[in-house]
Amino acid sequence: MPHISIGNDLPGISGLLADRPDSAAPLNQLVNVLLRGPSPLPRGERELIAAYVSELNRTRFCSDSHGAFAAAQLDGGEELVTAVLNDLETAPVSEQLRALLRVAAEVQAFARPVSEKAVAAARAEGAGDDEIHDTVLIAAAFCMYNRYVSCLDTELPADRSYYTEGARRIVAHGYGSRR
Amino acid sequence: MPHISIGNDLPGISGLLADRPDSAAPLNQLVNVLLRGPSPLPRGERELIAAYVSELNRTRFCSDSHGAFAAAQLDGGEELVTAVLNDLETAPVSEQLRALLRVAAEVQAFARPVSEKAVAAARAEGAGDDEIHDTVLIAAAFCMYNRYVSCLDTELPADRSYYTEGARRIVAHGYGSRR
Repeated sequence: MPHISIGNDLPGISGLLADRPDSAAPLNQLVNVLLRGPSPLPRGERELIAAYVSELNRTRFCSDSHGAFAAAQLDGGEELVTAVLNDLETAPVSEQLRALLRVAAEVQAFARPVSEKAVAAARAEGAGDDEIHDTVLIAAAFCMYNRYVSCLDTELPADRSYYTEGARRIVAHGYGSRR
Repeated sequence: MPHISIGNDLPGISGLLADRPDSAAPLNQLVNVLLRGPSPLPRGERELIAAYVSELNRTRFCSDSHGAFAAAQLDGGEELVTAVLNDLETAPVSEQLRALLRVAAEVQAFARPVSEKAVAAARAEGAGDDEIHDTVLIAAAFCMYNRYVSCLDTELPADRSYYTEGARRIVAHGYGSRR
């Protein structure tokens, strides 16, 4: 039972967004810019950063959704996403992405400067200012989305087809689309 | 020294927003909706929630700025803001606002359901769904803004007149205004 009454039976953030159009507009615009707008990081990798931070925050709705959206846009599919969420150290991702996911994990943990070591490691694997900026802001944003979903104690969907259907819609049309 | 190069010498989030207009647009729109849009909570109280969460996150730039914006819009002014940031338990705020600030502190700490106790205490002081929703989303959003500012290791302004000048501009024109 969510902490507040939501005028629909949609799970996770979907119910909140449908119920609160004023805040939904910038929340949808932000996630579209961060995960689908211009960036040196491919969309699948950005979704994976979102899923990874959500997993660290234990926000099941967000790690399952963004995991499904990542799987739909990465060559390694669901198997790769599961490997990253289970153990970043052994997952078969590029060393640059592994270094960026370590930066994201530091952002998830605290609002304090990412360590020089983590930034230097990402730069050593070819990450520049844009990759570092986008990783930090995506990780920070999911510390917000995860809290919105978890702190209000929203519901999970009845079955996992909710996420794969969401992936189809979002990959084709972006966030905030009703199609 | 920030972790990434910013094409201006503005402190805190201001430099990042000026440097990255794509993400700045929804970030400014979101903070305008949350802190200045329709809500049962007065603007000064919403700024105080933002300052309090920023203080808990130890993001000086954000606690100082939103503290100044709260002081400019609350009858108790700077003295009240300082009292809340120093010790919520003894600060001279309404019991409803104190209960909502406790909810905000739980959101700051973890992405997990706010305790039934904290929600019930806020409801007992007259808070309804809208007050609880807005408090949770403001607190969650500042877990993002604080991380964006702190994790990239942005600079503080050279002196505190930066915040009072910001307060004048934001109270009159809103976030994202250059006036």
